[in-house]
Amino acid sequence: MADHSFQGFRSRFILLQKELSTLPTIAYLGPEHTFSHLVARKRFPEGRLIPCVSIAEVIAFAEVSQNHLGLVPIENSSGGMILETVDRLLEEAQPLFIHEELALHVRLALIGHPGEAPVVVFSHWAPLGHCRRWVEERYPGIELRVAESTAEAARLAAKTPRAAALATREAAAATGLAVLHYPVEEGIVNLTQFVLLGRGKPTPGGRETSLVFSLPQEPGSLCSFLEAFRTEKINLKRIVSRPVPGQPNTYVFFVSLEGSDEEPPMERALRKAEQRALRCRSLGSYPVLAPYDS
Amino acid sequence: MADHSFQGFRSRFILLQKELSTLPTIAYLGPEHTFSHLVARKRFPEGRLIPCVSIAEVIAFAEVSQNHLGLVPIENSSGGMILETVDRLLEEAQPLFIHEELALHVRLALIGHPGEAPVVVFSHWAPLGHCRRWVEERYPGIELRVAESTAEAARLAAKTPRAAALATREAAAATGLAVLHYPVEEGIVNLTQFVLLGRGKPTPGGRETSLVFSLPQEPGSLCSFLEAFRTEKINLKRIVSRPVPGQPNTYVFFVSLEGSDEEPPMERALRKAEQRALRCRSLGSYPVLAPYDS
Repeated sequence: MADHSFQGFRSRFILLQKELSTLPTIAYLGPEHTFSHLVARKRFPEGRLIPCVSIAEVIAFAEVSQNHLGLVPIENSSGGMILETVDRLLEEAQPLFIHEELALHVRLALIGHPGEAPVVVFSHWAPLGHCRRWVEERYPGIELRVAESTAEAARLAAKTPRAAALATREAAAATGLAVLHYPVEEGIVNLTQFVLLGRGKPTPGGRETSLVFSLPQEPGSLCSFLEAFRTEKINLKRIVSRPVPGQPNTYVFFVSLEGSDEEPPMERALRKAEQRALRCRSLGSYPVLAPYDS
Repeated sequence: MADHSFQGFRSRFILLQKELSTLPTIAYLGPEHTFSHLVARKRFPEGRLIPCVSIAEVIAFAEVSQNHLGLVPIENSSGGMILETVDRLLEEAQPLFIHEELALHVRLALIGHPGEAPVVVFSHWAPLGHCRRWVEERYPGIELRVAESTAEAARLAAKTPRAAALATREAAAATGLAVLHYPVEEGIVNLTQFVLLGRGKPTPGGRETSLVFSLPQEPGSLCSFLEAFRTEKINLKRIVSRPVPGQPNTYVFFVSLEGSDEEPPMERALRKAEQRALRCRSLGSYPVLAPYDS
């Protein structure tokens, strides 16, 4: 039974204050019951989780204080790099480091009112784009409506007659909807990778290192940059080049490398590579966690 | 005045038959009045243009015959590589080559019924994702609905009371709608690059060469591959790595290089690079056209 005495309230309040100051505070792409929220809860079952409305807001939250962390998606095995995140990491004054890489096997559910064929389906624009055909084949003539997130889609579907949503199964439970299909588009592997960002340097013991850098516009500049890592036998995990807005033919790069910057080979490679870049910033070395299931 | 006589009809029919056999036939991502259609018409004002429902269908059409070409988007300065296209080019049995690279300054219009504030806006999922905030700030509470294309969005808006569409300005003219805002999100440079694909080898005189390749999973493999081009002073224009579905940690690459494979330095570099890849296929050397305006 709950303790409603003043003493009980006071001790809970003191405990709460203590928790607030010691437990990590993690911003994620909200609202509740998005895939980002699922990862945040699996990773930080005891943490304070703060829903944000955009990747930019998650990152702004993480920039504010050493005690703040931000969880953002970075790569999707079907859709490629999440450019909104990559572009933020590429920004010149970016003070954040990657503390961890996490992953989620994303499985969407079609959730709706039980015993009713939906005539409208809500979701975030990306799942609507990816699953449009799947939905239209099963429900010809269905209307596809964009919501801010899969969780918001579930909320809208719950209050709209004959509506459904592409969302997490948990969003069904949270909104009182039924799971009509799960998983949607079986057979397609959809592994989404996330990074946990924070101001402080990540704790030692990481096994992967990420860098952002820009290169002089001359033949062989990328090869010369990467050569520093080949010499030290360091493997490349991902690379993406991005045009710089407003500067045609200027590219910045984001790479992830296997190994830690505490190890002498990576240290040497980083020192050499930096000399060959116009600009180069390490986002730190961090652990890579095993994928969660959704 | 139109000539409705049998003779007139017959001569037009013969002319049409002749045109069909000599003019190029180009598939594009339809329906009519999409941005792909705009590029196709600007490039081939006299060509037979065939609207297709998906990038996959455009590519399938181009694969059928030597006389068929397919026009598909490949890179967007705000959204990055169009992975549906890249993934097709990376397929093992792909018989197509790039014949030309084209570009369009994409400027969306909000089109709708004159003198009416819209309560619903239709568009392709990508513009809805990119312009959601812009639309919601101007029209609070507006519904965002996904259509197959910007052109289909215009058609739906035209027959729906109080509806608007994010589409081309031409789609307004074609559907009888008015341009409510143009351009949407002024200030954001949105240059979309397209490639023209065909079965035959592109005609000589190209200035850019694209390759797809996969590499052994070992440190330095990308550097060793690129080294062949550095030695020959060949500049890299874009690079993208893609995970191979179902094969974790296996990546294929798509690169575009400045220069033609008819030139001895590129020839030498390609020969050397091929030896360092598990698989490498040239998509040919092709001209890069100046961007069109929308």
